[in-house]
Amino acid sequence: MRVEMLSVFPQMFAPYLDASIMGRAQRAGVFEYEAYDLRDWTHDRHRTVDDAPFGGGQGMLMKPEPLFEAVRDIAASGDVRPYVVFFSPCGTVFDQAVARRLSTCERLLFVCGRYEGMDERVYELADETLSLGDYVLTGGELPALVVTDAVVRLLPGALGDEMSAQDESFSDGLLEYAQYTRPQDFEGRTVPDVLVSGDHAKIAAWRRQNAVERTARWRPDLLDDVELTKEERALAERIARGTSE
Amino acid sequence: MRVEMLSVFPQMFAPYLDASIMGRAQRAGVFEYEAYDLRDWTHDRHRTVDDAPFGGGQGMLMKPEPLFEAVRDIAASGDVRPYVVFFSPCGTVFDQAVARRLSTCERLLFVCGRYEGMDERVYELADETLSLGDYVLTGGELPALVVTDAVVRLLPGALGDEMSAQDESFSDGLLEYAQYTRPQDFEGRTVPDVLVSGDHAKIAAWRRQNAVERTARWRPDLLDDVELTKEERALAERIARGTSE
Repeated sequence: MRVEMLSVFPQMFAPYLDASIMGRAQRAGVFEYEAYDLRDWTHDRHRTVDDAPFGGGQGMLMKPEPLFEAVRDIAASGDVRPYVVFFSPCGTVFDQAVARRLSTCERLLFVCGRYEGMDERVYELADETLSLGDYVLTGGELPALVVTDAVVRLLPGALGDEMSAQDESFSDGLLEYAQYTRPQDFEGRTVPDVLVSGDHAKIAAWRRQNAVERTARWRPDLLDDVELTKEERALAERIARGTSE
Repeated sequence: MRVEMLSVFPQMFAPYLDASIMGRAQRAGVFEYEAYDLRDWTHDRHRTVDDAPFGGGQGMLMKPEPLFEAVRDIAASGDVRPYVVFFSPCGTVFDQAVARRLSTCERLLFVCGRYEGMDERVYELADETLSLGDYVLTGGELPALVVTDAVVRLLPGALGDEMSAQDESFSDGLLEYAQYTRPQDFEGRTVPDVLVSGDHAKIAAWRRQNAVERTARWRPDLLDDVELTKEERALAERIARGTSE
């Protein structure tokens, strides 16, 4: 996968993407990225990318011309047209299903503006506009990194182990079960016995029930889209009513 | 405000926080930050922070000992106890109301682990566990940056203009109205006439209605918590039914 970013802060991406798991995924050939400086598509001495809003109001807006010119130029380069993603609180709320869908793209272009200050006309350039959640950020750079991270880790080979991305929260629609590592007793806090029993069927059953319980307790909204057995559904309803037995 | 991060990648924060608006906010004395290396609280030659899960499974989990020791040490330092935030898909979903609440803290400590691989016992250290949204990331570093950005920009003086953080999406529960800057005509795409009319009352009315329309179209779920006039409620319902007049 090729990931591209268009930003007035193109230097913000390397420190995250060249380190840790993203760095290893690049070296493994799983993805490559390029960050473009939007100011390279300006034509005035001050390399202006923003201007005051019509109708008054605070703050500056990203101007349409450099964005149109840049996105058109970048899209026309290369063999494959990129799938162009903008960020805005008005966009589709990003979730794991969107990450899975984007992970099938060959080429992604993230357009990072001031998060809430783009001329409305530029959104016509977007194949999709995403919102990271119901909060306001200063710019689209962190959203681009978050989406890149969530998408790249789904690509085969990214985690150094084809299976690791499977076994996790949201892949079956539930929150993940509680996990424990050594020591078995930490200052009196012990690991549930079943997990050290060596009985794999019991462990799998405990984990499934634990995942249902946690989801019912913390994110009951997620249960609408999950297939539960009759017993699991009853357990979830007991927890929702606050009567855990 | 003082913001601290505990991570095995303490170098990931500076490139974002020292640049742009966050860098300016630091220089203006609005906030300061410090990133700690979790491995400084290990005591073996390999500086081990993770171990295999009990009961089997893929991936490694963050061990309890270094996290307990580090959080206790950091919390005991300084005059004010930090408000300790962990990240997990099981956490409270982060939104603008949470950002506003955190912006009243004097000292925040973000504990950044592998996003889904912490020994369950460590969550006892958390004053609050947050989820950035329903997606899986490789670690807590990007969530810590996102929350820091969303919180710091709410602090007085952070945006260089006491008012700018007010006028935006979610502050009145609605998505923001469409905004436009020059040119008034870009390749035939024109700015709505009212915005260049100079009539401030009409502009304010257009913006309010536009915000209601956009929210009804893209995020009708947000309207439950918003105070609307009878006319606005009727408009929102027409849009929800797909009959925009």
